Amino acid sequence: MQGLIMPHTTSDTLLTLNVELGERSYPIHIGAGLLGDPRWLEPYLAGRQVMIVTNETVAPRYLERLRQGLSGDREIREVVLPDGEHTKTLDSVSRIWDALLDAGFNRRCTLVALGGGVIGDMAGFAAACYQRGVAFIQVPTTLLSQVDSSVGGKTGVNHPRGKNMIGAFWQPRAVLIDTDTLKTLPERELSAGLAEVIKYGLIRDAEFLTWLEAHMRELRDLDASALSEAIHRSCALKAAVVAEDETEQGVRALLNLGHTFGHAIEAHQGYGAWLHGEAVGVGMLMAAELSHRLGWLGKDDMARVSAILEAAGLPRTAPQSMATADFLDRMRLDKKNLDSKLRLILLRSLGDACVHDATPQAELDDLLETFPRG
Amino acid sequence: MQGLIMPHTTSDTLLTLNVELGERSYPIHIGAGLLGDPRWLEPYLAGRQVMIVTNETVAPRYLERLRQGLSGDREIREVVLPDGEHTKTLDSVSRIWDALLDAGFNRRCTLVALGGGVIGDMAGFAAACYQRGVAFIQVPTTLLSQVDSSVGGKTGVNHPRGKNMIGAFWQPRAVLIDTDTLKTLPERELSAGLAEVIKYGLIRDAEFLTWLEAHMRELRDLDASALSEAIHRSCALKAAVVAEDETEQGVRALLNLGHTFGHAIEAHQGYGAWLHGEAVGVGMLMAAELSHRLGWLGKDDMARVSAILEAAGLPRTAPQSMATADFLDRMRLDKKNLDSKLRLILLRSLGDACVHDATPQAELDDLLETFPRG
Repeated sequence: MQGLIMPHTTSDTLLTLNVELGERSYPIHIGAGLLGDPRWLEPYLAGRQVMIVTNETVAPRYLERLRQGLSGDREIREVVLPDGEHTKTLDSVSRIWDALLDAGFNRRCTLVALGGGVIGDMAGFAAACYQRGVAFIQVPTTLLSQVDSSVGGKTGVNHPRGKNMIGAFWQPRAVLIDTDTLKTLPERELSAGLAEVIKYGLIRDAEFLTWLEAHMRELRDLDASALSEAIHRSCALKAAVVAEDETEQGVRALLNLGHTFGHAIEAHQGYGAWLHGEAVGVGMLMAAELSHRLGWLGKDDMARVSAILEAAGLPRTAPQSMATADFLDRMRLDKKNLDSKLRLILLRSLGDACVHDATPQAELDDLLETFPRG
Repeated sequence: MQGLIMPHTTSDTLLTLNVELGERSYPIHIGAGLLGDPRWLEPYLAGRQVMIVTNETVAPRYLERLRQGLSGDREIREVVLPDGEHTKTLDSVSRIWDALLDAGFNRRCTLVALGGGVIGDMAGFAAACYQRGVAFIQVPTTLLSQVDSSVGGKTGVNHPRGKNMIGAFWQPRAVLIDTDTLKTLPERELSAGLAEVIKYGLIRDAEFLTWLEAHMRELRDLDASALSEAIHRSCALKAAVVAEDETEQGVRALLNLGHTFGHAIEAHQGYGAWLHGEAVGVGMLMAAELSHRLGWLGKDDMARVSAILEAAGLPRTAPQSMATADFLDRMRLDKKNLDSKLRLILLRSLGDACVHDATPQAELDDLLETFPRG
């Protein structure tokens, strides 16, 4: 895994990161103004046929600009899905497959995901399974999807019984991150994206955490340079973890810091009520609190975790309506619970996460009982 | 790719073939009486949780015997689907996912496909996408699935617009072929399986073709030794091709001899009306006829192809109701047509197939016009 900085004329600072996965390696290009420039999209298309997958919110803002990044002889179609986490279903993916088949698209077609994580996950899953796998390019337009879905190859949909239960590992041919798209992102979604950025600092990079504490204001003010730096560093951290462990057998589990609690919150509240990053933010605070009770994090550390979440504009309390039993029921199905043993990601120190499968039930119960609701 | 013959006490001749695919290598065990013997199933289970996927025809015959091959401390569930190609849909696969989630099965569960190709394709696809991929064991109970679906890792479902349009490449951990299960197979399905066996001889092994001409009677009489030999050789031929080309970029296309025409017949008649092997048999005769017209096969060769299909009890005429235009419409969407160019698998000689993408349209039209209907 290596990142390199390249000079470029489109924007002052274009950053490119190569995600090294052998035959499936791909670049992430990060910068302002990439979207309408054919130099960034054209080289990664598999054939003439291009299916753009986007949603009703993103389409009016960026679909035309994306089309400008495609040369005239392409056969371009699009699927515009409704917006929101509740649309992340097998039915929506079936609509993409229907559109591909209606257009007579073959195995050399390319799917381009234009939107947030929901669009990326669905378009990626559609690509993974269309004629047993076709090319796929990610153009993430939310901070969360830029720092999270860009790396890792996870695709899929939710099931009434659990998040991301149906899916596949499928790598994109390229990821194009145009930081200009964040200008139209609601502030609440920006904060949710920052939760995942903070996560990378917490699990693996104490220095980055300190950098984030110093630059949180600039990030929330959409300073282009700070954003590019934070996205690049987040993607690089994730890419390093994924390159070590592509199919999530070991170290990759650390990326799930806050996710066991967070998924429980999302599922209990109904997908879409809480943003994923908001739920993960509270989940990280719960994991930090448990780490503190196990004697790993000091009081100062806890205060820093809480303060940076606050600075990012994130909630720090669990839903009022969620009882301890609600958490436990939802956590039982979590994918990290191998053969019914509960596994949690905890923090040995700030910047050093670990997999912990020996959390005493009483300790967990007590945390869930006493963690603040709001 | 290597096959080795091992002595074994369950049956006189147990054959084992190792399909070499690096990390995804797996064995195919072939013999009589494997089904109820724990030695053949237990070593390949990923964890305690086992989901058997089968259909209403196979379940009463073999489900109990399969369960006897599982030790007492397993958590065993089953999904019994309706029988037939028309059930090979996303809805059926969703039923498998629902059953897995209802049972609270995690990423360490194992799916066991007990049945023909339809069950294998659906269970394999369900395994490929459940929590982004879980373990999978094939127990094929038809000759077609034993010689075809056992090797290659192709899984998936049909779409109203085309066969196998939605799917994934997903390798089993093991394939267990109990030749005893062929005793309850309808004769028509045995013949359909023989079509694929003949295919391996036609595309790659003239000597095997001669062996088949000599042993066709024994195969149709279910002679155990002849069956094991034919299955082993077919799987070995397919495994050699797949090992060269796991994701079907090149030589693997040869395995589709007869399939472009065959798929058109199946789709036009409605899936299930013709058995897959029956359609492929006629498709191979059409491909042979076209090869003859291009000057590659002699009259004697054509007569041998026709005679061995007849000896196997297979149809040798296309459906009465299918006009030339019906074939052309269906063939247009075929996955082998990259960027709208028609590619066919033809025979340079018996035992030597090739990919041909320069068939003159007039030649193809003439074949489709004049090929016998019945």
